[in-house]
Amino acid sequence: MTPEFNLIQQYFTRPAAQADLGVGDDAALISVTPGQQMAISADMLVAGTHFFADADPYQLGWKSLAVNISDMAAMGAQPKWATLAIALPEINERWLAEFSRGFFACAEKFNVDLIGGDTTRGPLTISVQIMGEVAAGKALQRAGAKIGDEIWVSGCLGDAALALAHTLSKFNLPEAEFASCAKALHTPQPRVSLGLALLGLANSAIDVSDGLLADLGHILQCSKVGAEIHLTNIPKSSIVSNYFSINAVRQMALVGGDDYELCFTAPYKAHAEISRLGEYLDIPLSVIGQITGNTGLVVRGFNHEILDFKETGFDHFA
Amino acid sequence: MTPEFNLIQQYFTRPAAQADLGVGDDAALISVTPGQQMAISADMLVAGTHFFADADPYQLGWKSLAVNISDMAAMGAQPKWATLAIALPEINERWLAEFSRGFFACAEKFNVDLIGGDTTRGPLTISVQIMGEVAAGKALQRAGAKIGDEIWVSGCLGDAALALAHTLSKFNLPEAEFASCAKALHTPQPRVSLGLALLGLANSAIDVSDGLLADLGHILQCSKVGAEIHLTNIPKSSIVSNYFSINAVRQMALVGGDDYELCFTAPYKAHAEISRLGEYLDIPLSVIGQITGNTGLVVRGFNHEILDFKETGFDHFA
Repeated sequence: MTPEFNLIQQYFTRPAAQADLGVGDDAALISVTPGQQMAISADMLVAGTHFFADADPYQLGWKSLAVNISDMAAMGAQPKWATLAIALPEINERWLAEFSRGFFACAEKFNVDLIGGDTTRGPLTISVQIMGEVAAGKALQRAGAKIGDEIWVSGCLGDAALALAHTLSKFNLPEAEFASCAKALHTPQPRVSLGLALLGLANSAIDVSDGLLADLGHILQCSKVGAEIHLTNIPKSSIVSNYFSINAVRQMALVGGDDYELCFTAPYKAHAEISRLGEYLDIPLSVIGQITGNTGLVVRGFNHEILDFKETGFDHFA
Repeated sequence: MTPEFNLIQQYFTRPAAQADLGVGDDAALISVTPGQQMAISADMLVAGTHFFADADPYQLGWKSLAVNISDMAAMGAQPKWATLAIALPEINERWLAEFSRGFFACAEKFNVDLIGGDTTRGPLTISVQIMGEVAAGKALQRAGAKIGDEIWVSGCLGDAALALAHTLSKFNLPEAEFASCAKALHTPQPRVSLGLALLGLANSAIDVSDGLLADLGHILQCSKVGAEIHLTNIPKSSIVSNYFSINAVRQMALVGGDDYELCFTAPYKAHAEISRLGEYLDIPLSVIGQITGNTGLVVRGFNHEILDFKETGFDHFA
């Protein structure tokens, strides 16, 4: 056995109840439920680009899986399986133990089996692929937005960006407020139950990972429609609200990334049912605007004026 | 659109005939054929560990997919879908064009659709996940080897290791011989057709990526059996044969990696049919030894003496 094989056995092998064959062969084997399509997404997190090299390994383990699960939520898919490929500068047992503890904490919460792994030497890089199931033909795609649709956002926006700004000393928060925002940044909670419940109700959906304007922009582009949203309707935590008079903080809520809330569009006739859904799931759901027949995204300010945003989201090649 | 989105659209988006939804949404959507299990494997290639940072991008694109397809071959699965996550130090248009050309050349040859992608800034790292289909319950696993099974190897071993040794100036080959070995190293040809044909014939299989002794060792360990193989029976190219009197070259054939041939075990009663298979597929197939009830792997030399190998394969954490 090579040490590589040892690492996978020691840190990344747990019973995979939903797999026919898990970690340890040339490939894993799974069976897809008849009538279901398989939804598949891949994300790579690189030290220095997506996280600090000295990031807490437990939180990193959680987040590297959570951001992928969020893609399943955005499709209305039930996440079930994941693979993990990780490059490490060296074998650090304590780091690996904490990383895998965080990864599996997230996996257990969302009932995901880790079915394959690859560990190798290299600059700290984490590549996760998530796989899930969705009723055939029912997935929530970016391309389904219709003119007149209401534009909804779950939870609140800006906390993660505010925590990052504090960490980078670009903004100064009291400890208690930072601690609250840091949770949103480091241990995001993907909206799986909401995504599943929106099947048949929403016309389109995306998760807010690169920032609301950028991600809503993807929906508009794929659906070939425009939109108008209102700054006053952007859902905010009490902390973001405290600083919302500051332009930089308003920007964080609109173009800051890492929120992992769902942005979705639905016809007005679904409004009441979606509202009840939010109460039932105990997830705040807000209408922030409407899909239009124009091209592009118009953001209106407190006095209904059209706001101008240069930045349209976090860009890994900026 | 972020440049990241541009990169995927520009270089990594091709029609995905076998997918219901390809690159460009939160997730891809595929349908698995009824009665088939899905086989899934992930591999990460890191500059400096698996390849040189200045490696030819076309060959790198080919190899990064080929080594994953080889895992499907080792399961007897038909590769169908892949995702690619890639970290790049910078946007180098020429590099990306060549890399994607090589990746898709391999994808087209083996009929694999690229259905998802992620590009980001970081140290050059390539993470590919491959997905395929295999008849439910029929996959070739590592754990199936039976006492008395013949141990087979496809093609020949050692060329890739010899080319690497030449590249590292640890061995000196004439240009023509190096060119021939370099093909094995840089553009491996996974044995998909052989893997598919071995369903129902072979008891166990693995692809030779870390070196014959290490990979056969995985079969022995998973199957809880031992094996005896004979140096005289190791299949070699004419080039490796030229230097086989040199101990270092014998080691390359036994512990050198990157051959991507199949090592499989089958009962003697299947011998004739497997031989005919090799002729039909025009793939050399050699019996190199037998599965035993002992523990461990015994390698016998030209005079039937037991050889001692310290090194048992390439280790990414050596």
